[in-house]
Amino acid sequence: MTMQITTPAPQAPAVPGRGRFRPLGQNEVRITGGFWGERQAVNGRNTLAHIEARLESEGWLPNFDLAAGDGLPERRRGREFSDSEVYKYLEALAWEIGRTDDPALEERFRAVVARVGRAQEADGYLNTHFGRPGQKPRWSDLEWGHELYCAGHLIQAAVARERTRPGSDDGLLAIARSAADLVCDEFGPGGHVKICGHAEIEVALAELFRLTGERRYIDQARVFVERHGRGTLRDIEWGRKYFQDDIAVRDADVLRGHAVRANYLAAGATDVAVETHDAALLKALRRQWDRTAARRTYITGGQGSHHQDEAFGEDWELPPDRAYSETCAGIGSIMFTWRLLLASGDSRHADLIERTLYNVVATSPAPDGRAFYYANTLHQRVPGTPADAHATSPRASSSLRAPWFEVSCCPPNVARTLASLDAYVATKDDDGVQLLQYAPSIVRTTLSDGRTVAFDVATDYPADGRVTITITEGAGAPWTLSARVPDWADGAVLRVVTADSTQQRQVPSGLVEVRHGFRPGDLVELELPMKPRVSSPDDRIDAIRGCVAIERGPEVLALESVDLEPTASGDIARIAVAPGAVPFERDGRVWIAVVPLGPFDDGWPYTGSRADAPGAASVDVPLVRYHDWAQRGPSTMRVWIPASSDSAPRADAGLPLGDGWT
Amino acid sequence: MTMQITTPAPQAPAVPGRGRFRPLGQNEVRITGGFWGERQAVNGRNTLAHIEARLESEGWLPNFDLAAGDGLPERRRGREFSDSEVYKYLEALAWEIGRTDDPALEERFRAVVARVGRAQEADGYLNTHFGRPGQKPRWSDLEWGHELYCAGHLIQAAVARERTRPGSDDGLLAIARSAADLVCDEFGPGGHVKICGHAEIEVALAELFRLTGERRYIDQARVFVERHGRGTLRDIEWGRKYFQDDIAVRDADVLRGHAVRANYLAAGATDVAVETHDAALLKALRRQWDRTAARRTYITGGQGSHHQDEAFGEDWELPPDRAYSETCAGIGSIMFTWRLLLASGDSRHADLIERTLYNVVATSPAPDGRAFYYANTLHQRVPGTPADAHATSPRASSSLRAPWFEVSCCPPNVARTLASLDAYVATKDDDGVQLLQYAPSIVRTTLSDGRTVAFDVATDYPADGRVTITITEGAGAPWTLSARVPDWADGAVLRVVTADSTQQRQVPSGLVEVRHGFRPGDLVELELPMKPRVSSPDDRIDAIRGCVAIERGPEVLALESVDLEPTASGDIARIAVAPGAVPFERDGRVWIAVVPLGPFDDGWPYTGSRADAPGAASVDVPLVRYHDWAQRGPSTMRVWIPASSDSAPRADAGLPLGDGWT
Repeated sequence: MTMQITTPAPQAPAVPGRGRFRPLGQNEVRITGGFWGERQAVNGRNTLAHIEARLESEGWLPNFDLAAGDGLPERRRGREFSDSEVYKYLEALAWEIGRTDDPALEERFRAVVARVGRAQEADGYLNTHFGRPGQKPRWSDLEWGHELYCAGHLIQAAVARERTRPGSDDGLLAIARSAADLVCDEFGPGGHVKICGHAEIEVALAELFRLTGERRYIDQARVFVERHGRGTLRDIEWGRKYFQDDIAVRDADVLRGHAVRANYLAAGATDVAVETHDAALLKALRRQWDRTAARRTYITGGQGSHHQDEAFGEDWELPPDRAYSETCAGIGSIMFTWRLLLASGDSRHADLIERTLYNVVATSPAPDGRAFYYANTLHQRVPGTPADAHATSPRASSSLRAPWFEVSCCPPNVARTLASLDAYVATKDDDGVQLLQYAPSIVRTTLSDGRTVAFDVATDYPADGRVTITITEGAGAPWTLSARVPDWADGAVLRVVTADSTQQRQVPSGLVEVRHGFRPGDLVELELPMKPRVSSPDDRIDAIRGCVAIERGPEVLALESVDLEPTASGDIARIAVAPGAVPFERDGRVWIAVVPLGPFDDGWPYTGSRADAPGAASVDVPLVRYHDWAQRGPSTMRVWIPASSDSAPRADAGLPLGDGWT
Repeated sequence: MTMQITTPAPQAPAVPGRGRFRPLGQNEVRITGGFWGERQAVNGRNTLAHIEARLESEGWLPNFDLAAGDGLPERRRGREFSDSEVYKYLEALAWEIGRTDDPALEERFRAVVARVGRAQEADGYLNTHFGRPGQKPRWSDLEWGHELYCAGHLIQAAVARERTRPGSDDGLLAIARSAADLVCDEFGPGGHVKICGHAEIEVALAELFRLTGERRYIDQARVFVERHGRGTLRDIEWGRKYFQDDIAVRDADVLRGHAVRANYLAAGATDVAVETHDAALLKALRRQWDRTAARRTYITGGQGSHHQDEAFGEDWELPPDRAYSETCAGIGSIMFTWRLLLASGDSRHADLIERTLYNVVATSPAPDGRAFYYANTLHQRVPGTPADAHATSPRASSSLRAPWFEVSCCPPNVARTLASLDAYVATKDDDGVQLLQYAPSIVRTTLSDGRTVAFDVATDYPADGRVTITITEGAGAPWTLSARVPDWADGAVLRVVTADSTQQRQVPSGLVEVRHGFRPGDLVELELPMKPRVSSPDDRIDAIRGCVAIERGPEVLALESVDLEPTASGDIARIAVAPGAVPFERDGRVWIAVVPLGPFDDGWPYTGSRADAPGAASVDVPLVRYHDWAQRGPSTMRVWIPASSDSAPRADAGLPLGDGWT
């Protein structure tokens, strides 16, 4: 086996060989601060060490030492998929090292890789849960065993490492290729006609192909994708849709079953479609994304409304109080959506990514990066109990963030996402650069004519809606700088200030393009309207009929009980938005007028009493950013607030421009 | 051990030693036809044989043969609680034999008892899943093992048998007492300080005490009840409330956790409170019932809104589409509620029992009694797939009735409930008889003065609201005949026709009492208003805000897609009740005017479009009795129907009397 690296690839998690947009990696975009910069700093400073400490204390990393020695299966600890958390941690470390070049992290990375490598068997097999005397045989439990899933995360870690530190001598890529080759041997022609119950190997093999140019990897990824829907896995209580083994990927209309699995598979299938020029498959995936976004996605971008099977519900089944909205499903959605964005150039994909980043990914970790939400409810009916800082939560749906879980997929998934987040900020095509997410950042890349262009982005987004892009390199022929105007940004204004002129115009949502022979010092400024707005749901979403949500920019807001005392009853079950109320900003927060509901009687609850306290005075209450909730002790919370029985309130139709723009 | 039968007890499942009302058993009340008589006949004719065939073919009955021989654990089949289904089947047989005196059933009963008895060990232990070499030790998995639960169902079967065939020589009572004695030895003073993860032993031991007068049984029942809430079981993902081991029974305010377990425990705790004169405990249970009925019960009487843990949700968490509403939870609710009714005489308890019987218990079995609902959703969003008549469903929440389940608690639970249903029709106290449920029936019992009174009940209820009670025995001093006017029956009219006079008056809901020196031929007639009515939910039940349900008498109605073609779009997601619509009856069905919702766009669903097709013509659609849904092939269905954005419709306030009553 020879190492065959094709071209220097962007330091990015997904690097398609073709598509409408090409990603800019960490080597081309760097977030320098702000909302995401702070979270990346906490991730690097606290979360990574927190994860490694837990992997150690829970035994999930020591399992590899036991495998290398003679300690399995007796002394093994953790669930069947615990190896994958080590690999996701390695992937997070790889991105963070790429981002920061931290020598201490480099040392930790190499130490973990060495322990992992010693557990690999001679034929490439690497899993601490299967195959030894006293363990189940290899590949004997594809439904639940997560063997290929674990291999996939190993491969993704190796790809991340090779992209950020090409040719490193740590050995991880060789470990991963050896494992990948075994997978191809075992599941390729003449091998097991099965898939993994948890998709992941598909996206990993596709990326390994992109990294190495080795065709058998994408061929095998395609085999796995095409094998879904043939019922090669056993039926289970929740049906084969749980593993997406109910309908062929190219025949499905919508994501279904386990929400993480569904998104990971869709991401891998998109990679396969792109790399194998399969337009029909790509079309099927776009169709699935459209319907999933329109009918199976929470306002937060979260996905999955079943606790039981961590799964999508049917269309319109989006209960806020039983929202599962697993953090990993949000991350999976970003993976899938990002790949469609690169393939299609459709900025709606970037809209959903932004929504999911601010309202799922940013919601999971505590401010100190040492506790996490696994599930992300949109309605907390009873105050939770604080988690023990040293315990491991048996509950995925904890009502307060927990430091670790018995199933702890989410913390390292958040870590690898935040550490690689720079790569989701901007893309390029033959004609220029697209700025998709707004953060203080620097962008520097080469255009197709070989010219280097660069710009700085200055913004307090999302606290403030102004985004100032200053060209720093790139004199010469015109090129196109595109900037995304989010779908919610009615009335956005674009200003272009060059040496020659200043132009200003209102711009619709989508990608607004500025084509110009930019020179250093030229400015492109975008003013996004950040006035809080009232959002009403499609009437088919039964669970929130008659309710409204308040949003501001990309952030969903919520009513949290700790904000209600002593200004209101404190019982969020008895509050409605006041008739005609319009949200407003004061003291850096968004407020809304509410009225009490009631009085209620406590008898049989279907006797028709409609309870709007007649003539009750309204009171203004502040809202919390959804991602900031549950940081002030146990509380109740709701995103969707009943509208009083008067017609639903609306924000003013005409949104005024910000200061200085009129 | 000597057999000690106290007094000839009513042939009824629960026979408290004291309380406001005393049950009348099968020997005193007999349903002779009508809605429930037909279902009892199907149960006796089809369901019992269906169950025994499945118990045989699934191996759950042969497990006892294996235990008696040498075939365990290798050849054992079924889940850890499969023994209990055999016992529930025996209980159902016992009631059915008591009802019908069928010699073929008697033969089957004795044959099954003999097989069960041979599996019992010398010390009384009887469980095919524990205690042998290669099995877990006895009592080693109280959280999940269901050992005491199985013992409880064995005891309940024996109690049913002894009540219906006192002194029978089949041996079941001795088997059960031996098992019960072992439980008392092992879990009494100095024994294991644990409870069973699934309550049931409590209610069983209480009833065995009532049957035998043996105090240790009620003492042990009390120990188990009091031991709940001390955390003697391990914490699990869903918390100890799953087993009601989170809060002491006397301290709790509401039922919580697994809905069957919660109700079974509450039933047993009520028995303990009654038999040990524990007024504080009884008060706590009544408080729990009140809040559970007001805040955690579906309009069908169904309970349990979580699929994941088959559990109650928080207050007001009652999603119709994710209603679990397990059939067994409905039966458990009837068990608990019936005991409170006997203790308190509060007719609201009989109201809930009626609601649960018509809309949960009657919904589960197919018309032929050979397929069942385990879970009872109130909103089916996509058509289901017909179950294979010979298969065993891995899914509790199947969208169509299934012949059997891997966890098949519900079919035998329905069977024992229907076979013992006569015992829920009427009660007595020192002053007379209370008629609580309306069915064609004969009632004959003795009053405290030793006099025999009897009456016949003639009715087509619930098809028709007239109930005619004809006195057949009971001349002499006045006594009180009470009849329940359901909570929904605004405008009920009572007519009393005696030799001397005819009196007629409108009567409020509750127990209406007629005290008279009745003579044979005297009539008491009740006319219950059966005009369909529109019911609106308490505004705190978020999931059905803005919706209405249509009810008629005790029956909840539903909109089923098979009724919509070709009169409407067929898509129940796009229909609302027309403004001001009033349900009406035509051709034996209830109809309501609906309007289409829409048009909708299929983009991001939180952009505020409110969709009432302006000026759309309404169309009348028929409703189906909820218990009759899904009998015409795969369909979609909803109980709660959006009200159009005009104000919610209401039935006319003044309900006219039926024909002949004005």
